[in-house]
Amino acid sequence: MRLAITGAAGFVGRAVVRRLEEVAPDVDLLLADRDASGLGGHEALVGDLADPATIAALAGDRVDAVLHLAALPGNAAERDPAASRAINLDLPLSLIEAMHGRRLVIAGSIGVFGGTLPCPVTDATVPVPTSVYGTHKRMVELAFADAIRRGVAGGVVLRLPGIVARPRSAGGFGSAFLSDLFHAACLGAAYRVPVAPDATSWLMSVRCCAANLAAAVLGDWNEPDALTLPALCVGIRELVAELARHGDVSRFVFEEEPATRATFGNYPALVTARAEALGLRSDGSLQKLVVSVLDDL
Amino acid sequence: MRLAITGAAGFVGRAVVRRLEEVAPDVDLLLADRDASGLGGHEALVGDLADPATIAALAGDRVDAVLHLAALPGNAAERDPAASRAINLDLPLSLIEAMHGRRLVIAGSIGVFGGTLPCPVTDATVPVPTSVYGTHKRMVELAFADAIRRGVAGGVVLRLPGIVARPRSAGGFGSAFLSDLFHAACLGAAYRVPVAPDATSWLMSVRCCAANLAAAVLGDWNEPDALTLPALCVGIRELVAELARHGDVSRFVFEEEPATRATFGNYPALVTARAEALGLRSDGSLQKLVVSVLDDL
Repeated sequence: MRLAITGAAGFVGRAVVRRLEEVAPDVDLLLADRDASGLGGHEALVGDLADPATIAALAGDRVDAVLHLAALPGNAAERDPAASRAINLDLPLSLIEAMHGRRLVIAGSIGVFGGTLPCPVTDATVPVPTSVYGTHKRMVELAFADAIRRGVAGGVVLRLPGIVARPRSAGGFGSAFLSDLFHAACLGAAYRVPVAPDATSWLMSVRCCAANLAAAVLGDWNEPDALTLPALCVGIRELVAELARHGDVSRFVFEEEPATRATFGNYPALVTARAEALGLRSDGSLQKLVVSVLDDL
Repeated sequence: MRLAITGAAGFVGRAVVRRLEEVAPDVDLLLADRDASGLGGHEALVGDLADPATIAALAGDRVDAVLHLAALPGNAAERDPAASRAINLDLPLSLIEAMHGRRLVIAGSIGVFGGTLPCPVTDATVPVPTSVYGTHKRMVELAFADAIRRGVAGGVVLRLPGIVARPRSAGGFGSAFLSDLFHAACLGAAYRVPVAPDATSWLMSVRCCAANLAAAVLGDWNEPDALTLPALCVGIRELVAELARHGDVSRFVFEEEPATRATFGNYPALVTARAEALGLRSDGSLQKLVVSVLDDL
């Protein structure tokens, strides 16, 4: 089996490659990214995915499945909607068309959920986005569902929750504070938490996320409707308390920014029955999530 | 005021032009279509909207608002998804970007509603499409909502119900039978009705539709969420009985095609409070709808 991964040099991409090396050492990987660094040990495709030739090489005859991770993050998308259209919409649409029935797993986002959410959010909740990023991600979900219905692609769109802990330099993510909490606790650094303690977010360790993405791309099931990954719904108060057991949070202060709270801090309970029936998993508990994240820092 | 209309030579386009000539004679019209016939009496822009130069001319500085009617109909979209992407998705997305805050009214479609619908469908019903056409129309709704949110376009997407009676030669519309009922009743012709008498559809006369589109494009309100036009939910049994009062339906037979029933014959009650609050109207009654349609045949 030959598997292509876009955004392979990114934070999630590198974790997925490590996971695939462990659980599927016989799978040949074709790693695509604009950035050649971090693609070592596997065949690399360095290029701009906006170039049709790159898409053609990526989804060429020798590739059995594609894991599409490359994206312009939410804050960057909001600043440059035209770039978001090119990267977050047109590119995956072209990729879907290029698959000709083969397996495609697309990293979606819980950013498709906008406005006030029902409690709990379930597989039956139809998302209505309220951001450029969420809008383009939802548009891709709809196009993918239609492609599955018509039999011209297989696979699934998996909505990623807040993935922790991204590197401190991760740009363009409005949710970066969720990762920075971990870094600051490890360092014992002063940290201004931009949401109140009663805020709640959907979180998953990068290791757990990588295991889910690897399972999906190696799987043989197709899901027309996008699946929200089984994230844990974590209270910020409980997260900080758990971090205190492993690090130093004594210099944390809470200064809520309404916009950050509205976008990243009001997530209700989440029921992900379909994803779990397909074998996709959460970190299991907040304790396990924190340990998994700190192990990788 | 200067108003551009795409698809102006089409069935709905010609009715809108007639309506605007009546209610807004001082408005300058720029009529765009691939087909130059039927554009008489106004400035014409004959060209392919897929050509960026046509979009540029259409949404040029001298135009105050655009009414976008051009589309590839549902059956044709299902046969050629790539053409549907170009016409029903990429083109309106480019148009939205070209508006720079000016008013844009887009003809959407109840085709965005797929699967089993709640009863009644209301403004709160989030559509989930199950066709190529409905998918692209819903994607445009989402992009338009985001453009309104960001203030880069004004206006609304109006979801058109079954518009009757299209010309008998109208191609590509799976809902053509709804129009053919009127033609066959007028002619006293034999007609195989492809749904059972208990089927229900959302209908509007072309005259009523044109009045609503004209009101929307001349209006000054913006609606981020697409509005379903206040169609009448019409039972086929009741429609045929009403047609019998004006024509001859003695040679009608009912032979239900499950696919046609599923797509066009299972519409539940419809509540369109937001559209009505903005002054958009249904035909008022089945009797009035039939008279309006037969007057125009």
